[in-house]
Amino acid sequence: MMRTILQGRLLPPPPINLRHSSLLSSPSHSHSNLKFTSKSSPSTPTLTMASIKVHGVPMSTATMRVLAALYEKELDFELIPVDMRAGAHKQEPFLSLNPFGQIPALQDGDLTLFESRAITEYIADEYSEKGEKLLCPGCNKVKALTKVWLQVEGQQFDPIASKIAFERIFKGMFGMTTDPAAVQELEGKLVRVLDIYEARLSKSEFLACDCFTLADLHHLPVIHYLMGTDSKTLFESRPKVSEWIKKITARPAWAKVLELHKQ
Amino acid sequence: MMRTILQGRLLPPPPINLRHSSLLSSPSHSHSNLKFTSKSSPSTPTLTMASIKVHGVPMSTATMRVLAALYEKELDFELIPVDMRAGAHKQEPFLSLNPFGQIPALQDGDLTLFESRAITEYIADEYSEKGEKLLCPGCNKVKALTKVWLQVEGQQFDPIASKIAFERIFKGMFGMTTDPAAVQELEGKLVRVLDIYEARLSKSEFLACDCFTLADLHHLPVIHYLMGTDSKTLFESRPKVSEWIKKITARPAWAKVLELHKQ
Repeated sequence: MMRTILQGRLLPPPPINLRHSSLLSSPSHSHSNLKFTSKSSPSTPTLTMASIKVHGVPMSTATMRVLAALYEKELDFELIPVDMRAGAHKQEPFLSLNPFGQIPALQDGDLTLFESRAITEYIADEYSEKGEKLLCPGCNKVKALTKVWLQVEGQQFDPIASKIAFERIFKGMFGMTTDPAAVQELEGKLVRVLDIYEARLSKSEFLACDCFTLADLHHLPVIHYLMGTDSKTLFESRPKVSEWIKKITARPAWAKVLELHKQ
Repeated sequence: MMRTILQGRLLPPPPINLRHSSLLSSPSHSHSNLKFTSKSSPSTPTLTMASIKVHGVPMSTATMRVLAALYEKELDFELIPVDMRAGAHKQEPFLSLNPFGQIPALQDGDLTLFESRAITEYIADEYSEKGEKLLCPGCNKVKALTKVWLQVEGQQFDPIASKIAFERIFKGMFGMTTDPAAVQELEGKLVRVLDIYEARLSKSEFLACDCFTLADLHHLPVIHYLMGTDSKTLFESRPKVSEWIKKITARPAWAKVLELHKQ
C-alpha cells in the first residue's frame, strides 16, 4: 500500500516527512520544464516543440515506466515536473489530468491519459512504426501471451516487489524504519514468483516471447531499485532471471531514464 | 492480500477451514465437466465439442470475469472444475496451465492462458466478430481510454474492493471474523474511488466511453458480492454509479454467470 506513495496514489495523507521529502518532487526541475529528444542526450534540452507531455517526477517508478517507453520509441517529449512536496498532484490543474491525483499523466495533443501501464500500451500502439516495437509482431498467440505477462507484472510481481522497495529504500529516505519481518514475508513471496520467472525464461528469451516487450519493460523501475538492496541476491541467484535483468537494464533507453536522476 | 484466496493465488497455505470450504471448489461439478453454449440456458449441458476450456470454479471472482466475457461473446465453452479443496490448483496437471497455481486458466485449441484480465482481452480480440464487442470500436483515443479504465479497475478499484468482499463475505464463509476497523479503512478508500467514478460516469455512459466494454465487465464479480453487503450503500448513494451498476448487472450474459452458482 505504502509502496504507492511515489506514484502519488490515493492514500491517507503521508506524514510531514513524506510530504517534504525531496524524492517527492524534482527540485532541479521544479520551476522549468525540460524537453527531450530521445536521440540526443537527455541532459541536453532542445528547442523542439514536443506534442507529448509527461507530468511526473524522474525518480517515481510509474513515471520511469513511461519515460522508458518514450525513449525506446525515440519520441520527443516534454517532462513537466509535478511539485509533490506542495501537493500539486492533489490539486487542480493536475486533477484534471488524473482525477486519482497520481503521477504520471500524459498529454499527446488533445488526448490525456493516466495509469502508467495504459500509457505505455498507448505509446506502443500509437507509435508502432517508431523505434523499438515493444510488442512482439507475431501472431494472436504471441499477442495473447504478452497480455498474460503484462498482467503477471501488474498483479503478481509489482504488488510484492514495490512493497519491498518501499521497505528497503523509500522508508529510509523518508526517515522511517524498515520492518525486517515485513521484508522477510515479502521476500518469501517474491522468491515463489521469481522461481516461475526462472522457469519461463528457460523457455523464451524474454517473458512474453523472444522479443523485448512492454511485459519486460514494466519491470525495470522496481527492479532497478531492488538491485541496489540486499534483495538483489534473490534475482542474481537465479541464472535466467539474472541474465534477463542484465539484458533489460543494459538497454540504451533505460540508461537515458536513469540519466534523469542525476540532474 | 487475503482477498485473492478465491483466485487461488500464491499465498501462504490457508488454514484448514479455508482448504475445506465448499466455496473453494464446486462440489456439484467436481466429477464431471459441463459444456455450455452461450445461447442456451447454462443449466442445459449440450453435446457440443467446445474448443474453449475454462479451468476454474463458478464462485471465484476471477473465473466469473472470464465466464462473463465468454457469455457476452456467445461462445461455446467447457467449464472444467478445479478441486481446490484437494489443492488441485497447486499441483500438476494444473500447474502446467498456470504456474502461479491460480484459477482460472483457459485453453483454446493449443493456446493456454492465465490471468483473468488477459484472458478476457484475448477473448475480445480473438472473437471480435462474435457477440458483443466488449471493446468500443472507436478511434485510437477511445482505445487508449479503455486501456486507462482497464488499469483503473485492476490497480485502483480491485485492490480495495476485493479486500472488502473478503472481510465482509468470504471470511464469514470460512469461519473467520470480519475486522470492522479494516472494513472502515477500506471503505474510506473506496468512497474516494467511487467519487471519481461518479464524476466519470457523469461524462460518459460507461467507464471508457458510451459503450459497455471490458473495463466495465471486469468490475462485475466483486460488485456483485459487495451489493449483497452493507457496502452497497456506498454504491447506491452515488446516482451515476448506481445507474451504471444497474445497467451492467442487468446484462443477460451476467445472469448466465450467476445461474452457475445455483447448480
